[in-house]
Amino acid sequence: MIPDLLTAGQFATVYNALSLVIAAQLFTAIFLVVSLPRVLARYRPAVTVALIVCGIAAYHYFRIFDSFTAAFTTDSVGGTGEYTQAVGVAFNEGYRYVDWLLTVPLLLVELVAVLALARAMQNRLLLQLVPASILMIALGYPGEVSGDLVVRTVFGILSTIPFLFILYVLFVQLSKSLALQPEAVRGTLSRLRFLLVLSWGVYPIAYLLPALDLGADGWVWKQVGYSIADIVAKAVYGLLIYQVAKTKSWLEDPKFAEHERPLVGSVRRVADLDKAA
Amino acid sequence: MIPDLLTAGQFATVYNALSLVIAAQLFTAIFLVVSLPRVLARYRPAVTVALIVCGIAAYHYFRIFDSFTAAFTTDSVGGTGEYTQAVGVAFNEGYRYVDWLLTVPLLLVELVAVLALARAMQNRLLLQLVPASILMIALGYPGEVSGDLVVRTVFGILSTIPFLFILYVLFVQLSKSLALQPEAVRGTLSRLRFLLVLSWGVYPIAYLLPALDLGADGWVWKQVGYSIADIVAKAVYGLLIYQVAKTKSWLEDPKFAEHERPLVGSVRRVADLDKAA
Repeated sequence: MIPDLLTAGQFATVYNALSLVIAAQLFTAIFLVVSLPRVLARYRPAVTVALIVCGIAAYHYFRIFDSFTAAFTTDSVGGTGEYTQAVGVAFNEGYRYVDWLLTVPLLLVELVAVLALARAMQNRLLLQLVPASILMIALGYPGEVSGDLVVRTVFGILSTIPFLFILYVLFVQLSKSLALQPEAVRGTLSRLRFLLVLSWGVYPIAYLLPALDLGADGWVWKQVGYSIADIVAKAVYGLLIYQVAKTKSWLEDPKFAEHERPLVGSVRRVADLDKAA
Repeated sequence: MIPDLLTAGQFATVYNALSLVIAAQLFTAIFLVVSLPRVLARYRPAVTVALIVCGIAAYHYFRIFDSFTAAFTTDSVGGTGEYTQAVGVAFNEGYRYVDWLLTVPLLLVELVAVLALARAMQNRLLLQLVPASILMIALGYPGEVSGDLVVRTVFGILSTIPFLFILYVLFVQLSKSLALQPEAVRGTLSRLRFLLVLSWGVYPIAYLLPALDLGADGWVWKQVGYSIADIVAKAVYGLLIYQVAKTKSWLEDPKFAEHERPLVGSVRRVADLDKAA
């Protein structure tokens, strides 16, 4: 599965993609920590889960980056030649699954939390989504680490079952709750579901890439694909959750909004200040 | 592109420049985190983006520094002799582009955010500036990593097109919004645009330096040039954004200003306090 040989360009592509993910996740997490006071207390759980997800992802990408740079070596001057698998070091693909096992259920918790539903309704949704997402990841792993195409296919199909159930909950069950959300955020919330599903769609594609037998290139694009999907599904997704939380906070507490909002259309007020000064 | 040989002096110059950037970015970020409560809530997004930009830059300079010290070695006692490219390690110029890909759009977000414009106007500006800046960086990279002068020139020209568009938006479109800003900050805001464009001007110069065939010296000055440009465009720029945010906060909320402002011209009040004590 892991290629025996990478060109310097292939090595640099994976290297830079992994570092990009670290920067994106780490600083989205820090941004959300700093921005937490900008939403009402009732939306802080959603934003807190969002920043924890990005933090967990940053941790795992630090590990994946170190694992990758240790697992491939070159004896060329300036590292411009070919890279081969190092003696005594494995590239550990398991980090991704440990990451997803923790973060994917939390991404669904994030989405439900920002809806700020009645507790009974929220618990019902979470009791469906969280176990299904854990099952989806756990069933994917035996296929991912297997070189056998039959094993890959069987576990690929098995993990699709809870995935379809999640789709059903998100697009049928959750739709009823969406109708209760303020008009201003309904569009974003609906798009968030698509973002989640589309970015998750990259994982099975990356999972199946080795079956196409593209050699080292297939493996490199799998790593890049996972990297981009993780940025979209966690950092971009987390920022959108924050956006929804902020919009709802402003709608629900005009006094709070007054402090937070830019001086929309209050040009006259600024001009008055000039005169007064 | 990367020189085969550096003198001890050239090595130390790059080494110290890179470390200077880490210190400048990291502690500007920390300063801005600590200073966040000193601006009104509506200006915290601008200052938050400023500190995130400096944080992202600090991360990448830690990486660049480590990459540089690993990529050059010497077998001289006390490291006083010549440095050659190490076996098995590449100096990764890609970090800079990954950094710019994230930070350059955010620098423009920072500038627009501190204007605190009506949402529609703000969104229009960002929809023009952010995609153009991503395009500018993405088109620069293939030229940067290429040793071929024709490829460098073609991609240099291509990435100049979105740059010219950004200039147009900043100096024509944005000028209308500047007129709505309080008198006290209009000068600083106008200068911020020049700072951005001037510091960005260093990048194409550094990009073209290798074409002058100055050898190792050209490469060393490219690294120093990028370092200085990054300090000016991110740390100095971020501090000026903070200054604008603080001035606007004081103008818009005299009560807030009363708490924040040093005792300007109120020597008598201090004297009174002394007497009272």
